[in-house]
Amino acid sequence: MIALSQLVELESRLGVSFRDKAILNVALTHSSYLNENPGEAAESNERLEFLGDAMIGSAVGEELYCRRPGWTEGQLTQARAALVKGATLSRVARGLRLGDYLRMGAGELAGGGSQRSGNLEAALEAVAGALFLDQGYDATRKFVVRVLCPEIDDLDAVHLQNPKSTLQEAVQANGLAPPTYEIVNATGADHAPSFTVEVSVDGEVVGRGDGSRKADAEQRAAAEALDKLDQS
Amino acid sequence: MIALSQLVELESRLGVSFRDKAILNVALTHSSYLNENPGEAAESNERLEFLGDAMIGSAVGEELYCRRPGWTEGQLTQARAALVKGATLSRVARGLRLGDYLRMGAGELAGGGSQRSGNLEAALEAVAGALFLDQGYDATRKFVVRVLCPEIDDLDAVHLQNPKSTLQEAVQANGLAPPTYEIVNATGADHAPSFTVEVSVDGEVVGRGDGSRKADAEQRAAAEALDKLDQS
Repeated sequence: MIALSQLVELESRLGVSFRDKAILNVALTHSSYLNENPGEAAESNERLEFLGDAMIGSAVGEELYCRRPGWTEGQLTQARAALVKGATLSRVARGLRLGDYLRMGAGELAGGGSQRSGNLEAALEAVAGALFLDQGYDATRKFVVRVLCPEIDDLDAVHLQNPKSTLQEAVQANGLAPPTYEIVNATGADHAPSFTVEVSVDGEVVGRGDGSRKADAEQRAAAEALDKLDQS
Repeated sequence: MIALSQLVELESRLGVSFRDKAILNVALTHSSYLNENPGEAAESNERLEFLGDAMIGSAVGEELYCRRPGWTEGQLTQARAALVKGATLSRVARGLRLGDYLRMGAGELAGGGSQRSGNLEAALEAVAGALFLDQGYDATRKFVVRVLCPEIDDLDAVHLQNPKSTLQEAVQANGLAPPTYEIVNATGADHAPSFTVEVSVDGEVVGRGDGSRKADAEQRAAAEALDKLDQS
C-alpha cells in the first residue's frame, strides 16, 4: 500500500478525502507494479479506469447539458468528445501531478511511464472510478467538473458555438479563399425538410452535414471540417 | 402535450413515475413534430438523448463492474459496447413499445418513423436522460439495469468469458480447422513481459491482442476476431 502520508497529500491536491484509502491505492496501481509485487493491491487500476471513463462521460455530459441550454445535440456531443479525449484528460492529470503518485514496475518507471500520457489519462479515470465507488455519482461529478473546469470554460471561447466563422478564420489565416457551401441533397415535405450540405476549401470537399434548416446543415458541415483539421 | 392518460400508461410500462410529466413529454417529442407544431414542447428530445446516452453508459458500466469482478477491462469494455449499441437499445425500446408513444411529424410518421430503429434508440436514451433530470443517477441506473436485464444476462452465456472457445466453436461449425495462435511480438523484462498474439483462421490473420500473459493476449486476439465476425 502507498504510504498514508502520500495518499493524504494527493487527496489534498485532488480536493477529496476517500473513506476507503485502499480503493485510492488501487486507482494508483499500474498493472506493471502488480506483475512485480503480486498481492500489493487487490488488483491494478484497469477496471477502475473502465468505470471512471463512464463516470467522466456522464459528469461532463450533465454539466454541458445544464450549462449550455442553447446548444444542439451535435454541439454537446462535439464538446464532450473534446473534453473526455485522452489529450485533455492526460493534461489535467499532469496538472494534478498524478504521475508522482502512480505505482508502476521498475521497467515502466525507467521508461518514463510516470509521465506517459496513456498512464496519466488512465490514472485520472481510475481516480474518478474509485471516487464513484467511495462516494457515489454526485461527489464524482463535482470532482470531475472541478478538475475539468478550465477546459470547460475554454470550450466556450472556441469554435463550438459557431463552426462556420471559426472555419472561415482558419482558412483565411492560411491565405486561402473563404469556404464555400453547397446543398447536395434536400428531401422531406415542405413542412419538414431535410438538407445535406457540403463545405469545400480550395475546391476540395472537407465536410458534410445534415439539418432541418440549411443554416444548421452548414454549421454541422463546418464542424466536421474543423474536426478533420484538428486531427490532421 | 401528450394526453396525461397516455403518459401514465407509458409510465406503468416503464415502471417509473415522473414528478415532472413535461420532461417525459419532451423525451417523446421527435424534432419533426416540433417543426409542424412549434411551441408544443420546450424542445425536441435530441438534447435529452445526448444526456441519456451518457447515463446509460454509466449505468451499464457500473452494473458490469460490480457484477463481474473477474472480468478484465477489455471484457468489460466489449460487454458495454454490446449493450449500449443501437441495435440493442432499439430492440429494448421496441419491447417497451416506446414507438407507440412517440410524437412525430406527419411525414416521419407516414414513413414508418415510429418503428424506425434510430428513433426508438433515441427515445429510450431520451427517457433515461429525462429520468436522470427528474430523479437523479440512482433511479436512472435502476431503470436502465431493469430494462436491459435480459440483455445483460444473455451476455454471460455468450462469448465474453472465453472468446477462445467461442471462436473455436464458430470456426468448426463452419467446417474449418481450429484457429491457430502465434506470438508475433514479446517485449519487456522477464518480470514484466508483454506479448502480442495473432490468431489465424484458414491461413488468414483474423485478430490480434496484447497481454502481460500469453493466455490473455490469445483471449484478446480471439475477442477481436469474434467482433469482426459479428460485424461481417
